[in-house]
Amino acid sequence: MRLLGKQEIEDIAVGAALLGTGGGGDPYIGKLMALQAVEEYGPIQLLSIDEIGDDDIVVPTGMMGAPTVMVEKAPSGEEAIATFKTLEAYLGEPIVATMPIEAGGINSMLPLALAAKLKLPVIDVDGMGRAFPELQMTTFYLDGVSATPMVISDEKGNAALLNTIDNLWAERLARNATIQMGGSVMMAIYPMKGKNLKQSGIPNILQLEEEIGRSIRLAKAEGYNPIEKILEITDGFQLFRGKVTDINRKTETGFTRGTATIDGLYKYRGEKLSLRFQNEHLLAVTENKLLCVTPDLIAVLDEETGLPITTEGLRYGARCVVIGMPCDEKWRTKKGIETCGPSYFGYDVEYIPVEKLMTEGAE
Amino acid sequence: MRLLGKQEIEDIAVGAALLGTGGGGDPYIGKLMALQAVEEYGPIQLLSIDEIGDDDIVVPTGMMGAPTVMVEKAPSGEEAIATFKTLEAYLGEPIVATMPIEAGGINSMLPLALAAKLKLPVIDVDGMGRAFPELQMTTFYLDGVSATPMVISDEKGNAALLNTIDNLWAERLARNATIQMGGSVMMAIYPMKGKNLKQSGIPNILQLEEEIGRSIRLAKAEGYNPIEKILEITDGFQLFRGKVTDINRKTETGFTRGTATIDGLYKYRGEKLSLRFQNEHLLAVTENKLLCVTPDLIAVLDEETGLPITTEGLRYGARCVVIGMPCDEKWRTKKGIETCGPSYFGYDVEYIPVEKLMTEGAE
Repeated sequence: MRLLGKQEIEDIAVGAALLGTGGGGDPYIGKLMALQAVEEYGPIQLLSIDEIGDDDIVVPTGMMGAPTVMVEKAPSGEEAIATFKTLEAYLGEPIVATMPIEAGGINSMLPLALAAKLKLPVIDVDGMGRAFPELQMTTFYLDGVSATPMVISDEKGNAALLNTIDNLWAERLARNATIQMGGSVMMAIYPMKGKNLKQSGIPNILQLEEEIGRSIRLAKAEGYNPIEKILEITDGFQLFRGKVTDINRKTETGFTRGTATIDGLYKYRGEKLSLRFQNEHLLAVTENKLLCVTPDLIAVLDEETGLPITTEGLRYGARCVVIGMPCDEKWRTKKGIETCGPSYFGYDVEYIPVEKLMTEGAE
Repeated sequence: MRLLGKQEIEDIAVGAALLGTGGGGDPYIGKLMALQAVEEYGPIQLLSIDEIGDDDIVVPTGMMGAPTVMVEKAPSGEEAIATFKTLEAYLGEPIVATMPIEAGGINSMLPLALAAKLKLPVIDVDGMGRAFPELQMTTFYLDGVSATPMVISDEKGNAALLNTIDNLWAERLARNATIQMGGSVMMAIYPMKGKNLKQSGIPNILQLEEEIGRSIRLAKAEGYNPIEKILEITDGFQLFRGKVTDINRKTETGFTRGTATIDGLYKYRGEKLSLRFQNEHLLAVTENKLLCVTPDLIAVLDEETGLPITTEGLRYGARCVVIGMPCDEKWRTKKGIETCGPSYFGYDVEYIPVEKLMTEGAE
């Protein structure tokens, strides 16, 4: 167990935004909420996965919906408390700890804010090792853990508890209710026992986020570019460098979907990178070469500062470095690729691990 | 307390279809389910409203969605049990009795089927004294009773428990989930205490339904037309007689909406009646006179047998008698008219009680 204070939260927020691969919501709002909660209730207990009992009930918390809506409609914190209270009433058992469902801007921060308020510990684990746009896209799902009973709650005070036959139905019903509730909601999802978490979670994700965030902070303080260090920490690759020249983005059916075009600079001059996203960046491809594809991670970083840029933060003219990082091995199974590989999102390419794409050269 | 057997169920089904004012679902499926449940589990206990304790938890059961879909997708009975189990888990208290939420074809029958299966008594009361298409349209709502926590469940095994800030939000979220779940679902709604029920319910509704159904049955056996007797039992009026010449009906946003035109016969020859419905008949108007409007009841009866015809059962050429009946006094308050009077449904007429319209003569 260790305690997370303000500096740790600042660093985790930056690392989370990077692993959020453009999605997971604007980290700024979540960070403010977490900082305020720590200010009010004191530091947050962070437990490693081994410190939780096999039969303890653990419930991830986070937001669901379009990040572009979330920016407009900041959660008060009461919604998340309502989801936990409703779920506890239904389960008839106390929730012992919380955790992030994904590594993503706001969704790494919201569990910290809720934990501080409810005096619960946070476990250093998530169910993606990155961010993904749909509820069934978790390593828990790969091992057959149900997303339900889950609860969503809006800022007006409405709540819905769902109990579905499978996680695809949970996604469908929750997504639809989210749209009705105004486009973004808080959720308590994938209630599970400690033993499920140990089997199916991706451990030490907050620690990794903190390490990334700290590197970027220290690089700024000491005046060097952090990108080399980020690639080292994440086993990542530089995919492209350039300037954003076109963004096509719309919010539909509860998601922020679109494409960004980046014109190459330096050794990439003359090339164009096309980035496709659905809340998260999912595909990076030039006119003649696939560079990186989901479930591997794609992040867009500010060329100068190394700070990650979210899909809704992409602006015309922004100079950026696009990096690719290998996903957790759990995603590289048959069911993993089926669940969140390129075909699921309608991209007509085959999944090839980023390290293979990078060492093969141009095709 | 008395017991309901097969004959009572047959009679109640007919009377319920009549008070269902064209909606509430096809009574045939519900009747079969209730008869089968009685066959299997024995007769059903019917309690009068005074026989329930003030603090007993009572939960109405019924279906939600478009009757036209319900005809295609008969419930198995397991959905309703799932709604009660889920609600009990959430409330942490046992449900002591059930009841119909409305007087309407299938929704008067489904509580009988569930009661037999769960060995629960049914209380002789409902929350409308007729059928209405939306969840907030109950006399419970007029007295501030919350529709939630409510649970809906589909035939696949998905369930959603909703807890909303008001009954309009319950309607909105449940309606949307119903559409996602295939257009019709079972629900457990308006959980309340015996004392709320005594204050806000419309008592003896099953008794009234049974009396109507029995009159129609006896009239057939004895070879006379039952319509006079129905008007006497319900304080009703004959509005029109004629032949259905046009039906415009569509299922949209979870409702069956439309208009039927009836060409007058006998003393109505030369006149045309226009009937507007949204699951239920809501407005009966000729070219120059308003005859009856919601919340008063409009029913279409077969000219020969007096049997009620549902909105989805209306066929070209059917010869029918259209009757109007005064609604319960609770609906004639300001909030009652706001909740389910003509303006709510978008009809540009003022509510005038049917007995006043009938005694005033042509306007």
